[in-house]
Amino acid sequence: MIRFFFRLVIGLGSLVGDANAQEQPFQWHNPANSDVQGIAGRGWASGFASPFNRFPGSAKEQLRNDVWQLSRNSAGLYISFTTTAPEIVVRYTVEGGMAMPHMPATGVRGVDLYARDEKDYWHWVNGKYNFGDTVEYKFSHIHAAIPLKEYRLYLPLYNAVNWLEIGAAEGSSFAFLPVPQSKPIVFYGTSILQGACASRPGLAYSNMLGRRLSQPVVNLGFSGNGLLEAPVIDLLQSIDASLYVLDCLPNLYDAQRFSREEVQQRIETAVMNLRKTRPDVPILLVEHPAGVAAASLDTALVNPYRRVNQLQQAVFDKLQRSGIKKLYLLPAEAFSFDASTTVDGTHPTDIGMQRYTDTYERMIRKITGRPAKKQ
Amino acid sequence: MIRFFFRLVIGLGSLVGDANAQEQPFQWHNPANSDVQGIAGRGWASGFASPFNRFPGSAKEQLRNDVWQLSRNSAGLYISFTTTAPEIVVRYTVEGGMAMPHMPATGVRGVDLYARDEKDYWHWVNGKYNFGDTVEYKFSHIHAAIPLKEYRLYLPLYNAVNWLEIGAAEGSSFAFLPVPQSKPIVFYGTSILQGACASRPGLAYSNMLGRRLSQPVVNLGFSGNGLLEAPVIDLLQSIDASLYVLDCLPNLYDAQRFSREEVQQRIETAVMNLRKTRPDVPILLVEHPAGVAAASLDTALVNPYRRVNQLQQAVFDKLQRSGIKKLYLLPAEAFSFDASTTVDGTHPTDIGMQRYTDTYERMIRKITGRPAKKQ
Repeated sequence: MIRFFFRLVIGLGSLVGDANAQEQPFQWHNPANSDVQGIAGRGWASGFASPFNRFPGSAKEQLRNDVWQLSRNSAGLYISFTTTAPEIVVRYTVEGGMAMPHMPATGVRGVDLYARDEKDYWHWVNGKYNFGDTVEYKFSHIHAAIPLKEYRLYLPLYNAVNWLEIGAAEGSSFAFLPVPQSKPIVFYGTSILQGACASRPGLAYSNMLGRRLSQPVVNLGFSGNGLLEAPVIDLLQSIDASLYVLDCLPNLYDAQRFSREEVQQRIETAVMNLRKTRPDVPILLVEHPAGVAAASLDTALVNPYRRVNQLQQAVFDKLQRSGIKKLYLLPAEAFSFDASTTVDGTHPTDIGMQRYTDTYERMIRKITGRPAKKQ
Repeated sequence: MIRFFFRLVIGLGSLVGDANAQEQPFQWHNPANSDVQGIAGRGWASGFASPFNRFPGSAKEQLRNDVWQLSRNSAGLYISFTTTAPEIVVRYTVEGGMAMPHMPATGVRGVDLYARDEKDYWHWVNGKYNFGDTVEYKFSHIHAAIPLKEYRLYLPLYNAVNWLEIGAAEGSSFAFLPVPQSKPIVFYGTSILQGACASRPGLAYSNMLGRRLSQPVVNLGFSGNGLLEAPVIDLLQSIDASLYVLDCLPNLYDAQRFSREEVQQRIETAVMNLRKTRPDVPILLVEHPAGVAAASLDTALVNPYRRVNQLQQAVFDKLQRSGIKKLYLLPAEAFSFDASTTVDGTHPTDIGMQRYTDTYERMIRKITGRPAKKQ
């Protein structure tokens, strides 16, 4: 049913014709075999069943199978390295679908490379991709005049990575950079957090935020299975976080499935359980930004989102009255969603992802008291 | 090789469960059989080989086959109507691929519905889609409290539409609105103009501009075949335009294929030929916005874009010196492209599409002296 039509784009696709590139011998580097723990974006340092999993292997027994399977998608994971090579090749194999009707293969299955320069500006690096059984991205002709401090390779948002290698020309330097040790911001959420429907991984809001804030971000977004479940909250507690963000309402809107009491109890229990283990870590509750009138004329879509936002507001008010400190609420209106921000009334376009990032950045800087830095 | 994985999104996809919707009898309306010429976004009123073509049938003999075939894609076409129905169904058949690696099916093959209210604000209408042999979009639960003046249904960006019907509940009013008679802005360009890689048709910049400016826009973007060719310029001349926009440089960057002289001659000839027939219509030459350093670290990509921008600048200067009036240049820098604006170094993300729209809107208002209106 589905086929790509490369013919039409061949004019632009063949722009970077590297007749000589293949002749150059590459040295291959596998982050899973590296002495340095170089796979970043996770809340745990070790114990993974696969090097590209988001949860430690021990979590499998605690979690519903859907959550476990989704946690094998590499959303939010990235690999940092330095190299002097003007050409970088990434090759990898994955499990999972190639694309979704509203999200392209470059976002679902692709990788995305950024490079930080000496002024801490993040450049995007263009890659030629080839979605074969082994996926290959080739990043060529990298601007030699800009002094680069760090590359960051974002992994696929909706695929599980089985194996990955990074190639750099022989004779050039190459080193994986260790995972940063500062406390991460930990997000627990839905398909939106996981990255649907960013056109490429670097534009998922958790990845944009990580660059903007220069702080580790842990993406625990699980498609339609971000349901504020106790086993996941338990896992969250085991992370020494700087901030917990609970953004599961887009999966809890359905009144038939989740009664008023059920929704409110899940929110309250999640907050109280996090508070028990991590009394000083701020917690941010987030409304569904598509629960505003400007997002869609479809009342059957917007009204349930608004309802669940209101349910959470009531829990928030109650918890505040009961004296819970460092609890914050991010209201739907703050995101300024409108006719351009979602692809389907729920999942952000890249414009929506940018609004998410802007809004979260403002809120997180407010909570943590960190002033904005000029990019 | 490619398959969608609906399972993962089913939680959100099944949100609008319309058990009763199918029982309601619909009245079907075919814009191709309507008394009113209701298919808008074209430079000609009649003579089409298919109702959803962008060029009149007579153009086929003049054009290279690639251009003709691409002109059958319905990019920029839309259908305006009014209805009191709270549910609208659109069904249609198409030719062409389902998706591209960097552009989802919703943009390539999907339709997109907007509704203008009494304050001239354009609401987006959420639709449930089904990409079967007959594509179906169902727009339900349309907000009844907002007084709507006009619906606008944008057609697929990268498919040719063969047949299309709009269904509205029996007993509700329905009328196609005639194509506006005011002079259009006519764009001639590439895949970027055609809409790659907007996530849905309403976010292609020509469609966003049409809403923003409340003015007809003609999209003559032809993927990799927007090459400033004489036969296309001849066709442009036959349109009584308010402004011509020539945005073909993203297809003319390749120095091996297009020498300095060739590029410059194509630009100069295009301008002079338009001037001959349409002496008073302003002409806007546009640089490739990805020809700026911030767009990509890939020098082999950015440098040819910069080169071709410079070639055009020289022609522009020469033509201005020779006394040509109402000729304008939109420089690459004006678009403020950066690390978030393209999916592949060339084609805009939705963020890039919005920058295109903002930049064009500013420039067009400057040229035409129309002040900005608050949305």
